[in-house]
Amino acid sequence: MSTPGVGVTVPAGFRSAGVTAGLKAHGGRDLALVVNDGPHPASAGVFTSNRVVAAPVTLTRAHLERATMRAVVLNSGGANACTGAEGMEDARATAAHVAAALGLLPEQVGVASTGLIGERLPMETLLAGVDLAVPALAADAAGGACAADAIRTTDTVPKTVQVDGPGWVIGGMAKGAGMLAPGLATMLCVLTTDALLEDEGAALALREAVRTTFDRTDSDGCMSTNDTVLLLASGASGSAPDPTEFTEGLRSACAGLARQLIADAEGASHDIEIVVQGASDESAGEAVARSVARSNLFKAAVFGNDPNWGRVVSQVGTVPSSLAPFDPEDLDVTINGVTVCRGGGVGDPRELVDMTPREVHVVIDLHAGEATVTLWTSDLTHDYVHENSAYSS
Amino acid sequence: MSTPGVGVTVPAGFRSAGVTAGLKAHGGRDLALVVNDGPHPASAGVFTSNRVVAAPVTLTRAHLERATMRAVVLNSGGANACTGAEGMEDARATAAHVAAALGLLPEQVGVASTGLIGERLPMETLLAGVDLAVPALAADAAGGACAADAIRTTDTVPKTVQVDGPGWVIGGMAKGAGMLAPGLATMLCVLTTDALLEDEGAALALREAVRTTFDRTDSDGCMSTNDTVLLLASGASGSAPDPTEFTEGLRSACAGLARQLIADAEGASHDIEIVVQGASDESAGEAVARSVARSNLFKAAVFGNDPNWGRVVSQVGTVPSSLAPFDPEDLDVTINGVTVCRGGGVGDPRELVDMTPREVHVVIDLHAGEATVTLWTSDLTHDYVHENSAYSS
Repeated sequence: MSTPGVGVTVPAGFRSAGVTAGLKAHGGRDLALVVNDGPHPASAGVFTSNRVVAAPVTLTRAHLERATMRAVVLNSGGANACTGAEGMEDARATAAHVAAALGLLPEQVGVASTGLIGERLPMETLLAGVDLAVPALAADAAGGACAADAIRTTDTVPKTVQVDGPGWVIGGMAKGAGMLAPGLATMLCVLTTDALLEDEGAALALREAVRTTFDRTDSDGCMSTNDTVLLLASGASGSAPDPTEFTEGLRSACAGLARQLIADAEGASHDIEIVVQGASDESAGEAVARSVARSNLFKAAVFGNDPNWGRVVSQVGTVPSSLAPFDPEDLDVTINGVTVCRGGGVGDPRELVDMTPREVHVVIDLHAGEATVTLWTSDLTHDYVHENSAYSS
Repeated sequence: MSTPGVGVTVPAGFRSAGVTAGLKAHGGRDLALVVNDGPHPASAGVFTSNRVVAAPVTLTRAHLERATMRAVVLNSGGANACTGAEGMEDARATAAHVAAALGLLPEQVGVASTGLIGERLPMETLLAGVDLAVPALAADAAGGACAADAIRTTDTVPKTVQVDGPGWVIGGMAKGAGMLAPGLATMLCVLTTDALLEDEGAALALREAVRTTFDRTDSDGCMSTNDTVLLLASGASGSAPDPTEFTEGLRSACAGLARQLIADAEGASHDIEIVVQGASDESAGEAVARSVARSNLFKAAVFGNDPNWGRVVSQVGTVPSSLAPFDPEDLDVTINGVTVCRGGGVGDPRELVDMTPREVHVVIDLHAGEATVTLWTSDLTHDYVHENSAYSS
């Protein structure tokens, strides 16, 4: 099980900082720096599958192909997306500046940005922030906590995680409160570990861990241009983990952070767990779960504490049979323990369902196989509309 | 061009009625009946592509395969969906009751229902409503107007249309204010014409007319279990239309009704026209338009009068290149006449965009071909959340 912790400085071999550069209109920390001091660094990254990608994503992906990442700089207050060749230059200059300050090569530095799309970053402000962050780097709890705070945008709380393995530990931080969708979310995440890994093993573990956690977190169906999940391993424990055990630990860390993201999703009043069972295979279950997680009608009903199973069933019915074979007359839907729909028709009385808890559990049984898939989403509320209609102003 | 009119009784050969059966909790007309008196009846239907279909859809589809439809009974106040074998019996009994009252065969009667899913209809009330409707049938404007009124659920106004062709005329009515999505909407629509048609020609014309109108109307991405569009031709004009001309007339009638549906979409404060031009082909343009029409972030921004082109571009980027080839660095986005994004980057100042009119026009140029596709949607508002969180209570 994962537990919240101080974040990226939990494992030995890491220093981090979070400072106020002045990028955010309303003040507060807005620039984070994480440094991997080794002794045996390894790294991996997973990025948005959006075809429109922000400059920092393009740069960091290229850097990871050329070198092991030793440091990552993250900023809130601007996404540096859709900013053309100038934006690419800005990302490059940021990496070069950090590299020079830390005695690294530019390709050993990753860059991640979050905030409004379509505006250039104020580079003087940002680079001055880097100069503030470097001397503030610390391996203690404050270093991790300040970094987790600095990457927040509309996040109301910082998100951190700690997972203890046999002889190694994983720490992590993440941000993201909207645009959480498949192929990642508008989220930045940095995971650190003192385990002894090679780049290749780190990449395999990260991809598998993300696949069933962040990739199954879908707050509003919107995919960002900036999603970045990085794994940095220091090797400071001297312990080479069992790959399966480490992947499971990493999955647990990602699940813990993903769960925190949903709990803080913009304006949400319910966290909704959608479990599809009896699916013919995992992809069928995922297609059904994702479809329900994107129904505005269902999500608005949950906001209204209405166990409206008709909106679940009608949404399940929109999934093509080529993606998910099932017989509509076999569908069962259970909401918070009450099977309100049985055999595609009326089940137990909806009045029995208590919708007041923050967590809502929806189980959809397709009776078409053995696979089970779990996906988390949140409800559609007045506050979601409010935050997202007023965000850029 | 289509013009609003009295609806289904515009063409000769039709009578209709709308009465208060008592199906709606809050009163008002809730049962409509439309009768085709010929002399040369023809009919066609298009239905939801949802795999979970309401009993009336299953029944009416089967009836259309066996006979030319001579009458259709429509009710609001209950969808008769997910009601199992009993629901199917209820739909069958309704058709039989109407048939007996009008001297028709049951398979000459169509049934359409709209309202809450998962509850059986009060059959005594419904059949008594049929008995009220039959003597009220009238070929005049009041007959059409009452029918259009009776099929409303959360619709704030009835929707009717009239299209005049050379020697023939088309009338129509529709309802639907939420769950408007591809493969139709939670909508019921009856189109009537005095043109001289055969069933086959009617089916061809209807399918083509629906494809570029109702199928490109997407208020909230949710597809209903009950969508039904019926075309009834009486042949009373004696005029056999040119197929292309008639299809265009029917398309115009459907477009007029679809536009009215969007204008009355639940809680909407803006009608959004999304035009994708420069697409490699029609399906590519449609994939891009539909993707943007489903972005809650973009739709909430429009509610906030925010020309947030970053949310358009990031959504366009989620469309797989296999569906829509384009270069993200070639994208132009124009909102209400201002090209705010040019070449995938910052264009003219967003401050120049006036978002206060009800209609918002978004033009996305992919610069990847010659195809243009237009789709209508609406914004995501507090009222949408309110109506859909409180609907079943």
